[in-house]
Amino acid sequence: MREEATAFVPGHITGFFSAHPDDDPTKAGSRGAGVTLTDGVEVTVEQTTAAESTIVLDGEELPIDPVETVLETLEVTARVEATSDVPLGSGFGVSGAMALGTALAANHVFERALSRNELVTIAHGAEVQAGTGLGDVVAQASGGVPIRLEPGSPQVNRMDAIPARARVEYVTFGELSTADVLSGETDQLTAAGKQALSRVVEEPTLLSFMYASRLFAREAELLTDRVARTIGDVTDADGQASMAMLGETVFALGTGLSDAGYEPSVCATHPAGAMLR
Amino acid sequence: MREEATAFVPGHITGFFSAHPDDDPTKAGSRGAGVTLTDGVEVTVEQTTAAESTIVLDGEELPIDPVETVLETLEVTARVEATSDVPLGSGFGVSGAMALGTALAANHVFERALSRNELVTIAHGAEVQAGTGLGDVVAQASGGVPIRLEPGSPQVNRMDAIPARARVEYVTFGELSTADVLSGETDQLTAAGKQALSRVVEEPTLLSFMYASRLFAREAELLTDRVARTIGDVTDADGQASMAMLGETVFALGTGLSDAGYEPSVCATHPAGAMLR
Repeated sequence: MREEATAFVPGHITGFFSAHPDDDPTKAGSRGAGVTLTDGVEVTVEQTTAAESTIVLDGEELPIDPVETVLETLEVTARVEATSDVPLGSGFGVSGAMALGTALAANHVFERALSRNELVTIAHGAEVQAGTGLGDVVAQASGGVPIRLEPGSPQVNRMDAIPARARVEYVTFGELSTADVLSGETDQLTAAGKQALSRVVEEPTLLSFMYASRLFAREAELLTDRVARTIGDVTDADGQASMAMLGETVFALGTGLSDAGYEPSVCATHPAGAMLR
Repeated sequence: MREEATAFVPGHITGFFSAHPDDDPTKAGSRGAGVTLTDGVEVTVEQTTAAESTIVLDGEELPIDPVETVLETLEVTARVEATSDVPLGSGFGVSGAMALGTALAANHVFERALSRNELVTIAHGAEVQAGTGLGDVVAQASGGVPIRLEPGSPQVNRMDAIPARARVEYVTFGELSTADVLSGETDQLTAAGKQALSRVVEEPTLLSFMYASRLFAREAELLTDRVARTIGDVTDADGQASMAMLGETVFALGTGLSDAGYEPSVCATHPAGAMLR
């Protein structure tokens, strides 16, 4: 066994989605599309002699349900230490990244000999069970600009991607609870999400992804005032922006937010899925 | 439309495989496993005013069937200029890389608005039709250490991967014709390939991949004298090596070939699939 291993998992902003619940968390999930980001989460798993696992994110010890579930499923006690370029609870898939990074690194440290699909399935199921996300883990395992054609873990889902790269800018105003939104009425959201997906499948380009995302955010009635105003500012500056699902975050391609006078964080789409360092 | 675009496609060494023919080249393919490499092929597609497409590899103009088929399928006339870190015809999937890189870059230059799966399908079908490979394209689209569970293009296949990274060393003695081997008697090869796949699915680790590959090369009776001797030398030095399918090439993980006194080319597994630059 190794002492420790580190995995990098790209951040993931969902532009639009539809929720697909199932009693089996490895079959539940979402359809939709998003961008994976060079800004992401670095997760180190270390062996520990302590009786219980500890989880640390950016220096702060905190419980993260899906990470605990992953460790339990792999039957390991470990110290998980993560640093994130992107904030928790703001639509960047940090909890999914923590779960997937933990699965990849723990499999390596404790020589569990599981396949990549098995590890993604464990992390996806843990995330769905915790209610913290539905599609981030499988998107983060793929990298690029993934389209989730069919929901669920790699054993049952179907993925495609928009074959393009882009500079990505984002600003974050605060948190939204994924669990709250997903536990509410989701019929309208799901209808809007299916429509957006048809559009992107018909024309898998970054431009159609941004159009579909913006329309979705409006129709699903998830826009906050600040987010709506910022998207409007980018549109006025001839840019393309939309809202991260789910967080009070606006993302734009190219220089959309800078051109509109904001001071965004800047990264790019990440060409690869989650990987061991 | 853009003037030009460049794609990088990792090299791919197949360790073992079984052939699965089908009248539909997008359904035909192979099961098996291999390693994608940081050594690969960079493919630039440029618009041209010439009447016919030209294909240049490492400064030399030459016809590469699957590349021509990809250009025809996308209905474009272009200049394709590629440089490769790895030799053609020696088991590194150069023709598949050329086909896939051409598809990704041409889609970008000529704004064909196809999805990633569609582009991989076109490149895979072109490669199968030409008889130059059966599984390189889908492996090169995935990156990492891909396991091909079910054959064919992304619409029908199933992929998994060994979740690990490694340094890879290789030496090449010469060419073997994939088309010649695949057009011959493949029953014994297919039986050996299926057995190797079971082993790796049961224990998806780099070590079991190398064992399965070495056993396959022996049972499929594809070893040349030089290759057999080199693999033996690495084994004697406590390393793991096997033969690239299909080329007179020996690859080893870690420092296997150096430790045995060879002067190999050195690269690593590539964490990402084919990507636009």
